[in-house]
Amino acid sequence: MRISELSSRTGVPVATIKYYLREGLLSPGHRSAATQAQYDDRHVGRLRLIRALREVGQLRLAAIRRVLAAVDDDRTGMHELLGTACYALSSDVDASDPEFAPVRAEVDAFLASLDWQVSPSAPARDELAQAVLILRRLGVPCSVDNLRSHAEAARSVAVREVDQLAEGEERAKTVERAVVSTVLYEPVLLALRRLAQEHESSRRFGPHR
Amino acid sequence: MRISELSSRTGVPVATIKYYLREGLLSPGHRSAATQAQYDDRHVGRLRLIRALREVGQLRLAAIRRVLAAVDDDRTGMHELLGTACYALSSDVDASDPEFAPVRAEVDAFLASLDWQVSPSAPARDELAQAVLILRRLGVPCSVDNLRSHAEAARSVAVREVDQLAEGEERAKTVERAVVSTVLYEPVLLALRRLAQEHESSRRFGPHR
Repeated sequence: MRISELSSRTGVPVATIKYYLREGLLSPGHRSAATQAQYDDRHVGRLRLIRALREVGQLRLAAIRRVLAAVDDDRTGMHELLGTACYALSSDVDASDPEFAPVRAEVDAFLASLDWQVSPSAPARDELAQAVLILRRLGVPCSVDNLRSHAEAARSVAVREVDQLAEGEERAKTVERAVVSTVLYEPVLLALRRLAQEHESSRRFGPHR
Repeated sequence: MRISELSSRTGVPVATIKYYLREGLLSPGHRSAATQAQYDDRHVGRLRLIRALREVGQLRLAAIRRVLAAVDDDRTGMHELLGTACYALSSDVDASDPEFAPVRAEVDAFLASLDWQVSPSAPARDELAQAVLILRRLGVPCSVDNLRSHAEAARSVAVREVDQLAEGEERAKTVERAVVSTVLYEPVLLALRRLAQEHESSRRFGPHR
């Protein structure tokens, strides 16, 4: 297909496709004439992945480049590949706060007690520590050990989500789905939690108990 | 205590306290001299609640006023009171999208099948419908019926969270804790989900399976 069809099939403007070609994020098409190139389904898949990383994952170009390099390097196993993509989705945490380090140590001890296999450099360790620190500063007693039920709930969700990834499709497609699901199931989970809170509040405090 | 001590005990600047007094969010102190008023622990509690609603809940003044009115009206039962506060925390959803209504109907049918007691006007119904719509538009097959495991996980978290509220303290304090927990446990849950995803990915795809 020509670049115009590639654009209409992916929803990515021609000018943006040309920019990705110049930046090397997208491999060149097959040159069919001096001024024309042909593109195929691999280009469609790659553009969909880039779009997911940019629009859903809000990643910058440098991070997108790292994820694509991992997708393209067959020596990168699937676990490492998913890690590369999902770590890039994390938010920055101010670890310089003097009260941060002890909370982070509590988080690490907690994860070890759960026997979860999580890299020491996983950004979500910092994100969890920061969330706990903010809770405590606002006067909510939050012992990390009291997070066991939250952790169990998170795990039952994750089992299901990782199950849905393991369907033997191509790497780019799996990474795209992992990134999109990781980000877009967040509001799903949070909305369900609010609905469940209302249900539980009704059972406990409601007028028709 | 004087207004200066009220300020230092709550972390709310004197000028802001005066603004809340003028707006009627805070009841006047007991006038001890022509230019001086005395404040007590109820003022401290009220200011903490206003601060939680503003800084954590990001509520506007009109919404804060509604929540405070519900706190002050003893005829408002605890379930309705928590609803007033937590509904105010919700985000706006564009329900005018022509594809929205059918997804919202699916969400309603799903919640009915779970037998959850949730008001037809709960904003989280719209939030869930919007999240599902976005997932589908990005090519993630998301049948509402496949959300049962997410719903079950959300419910186990909510049971625990509502349990922690039911400790017979004063209404303003309970509402403050409900608002703070509802908002600030969100990043806790999301960080735990990412950690759990890594653990499950390691079990399924990791090099040391």
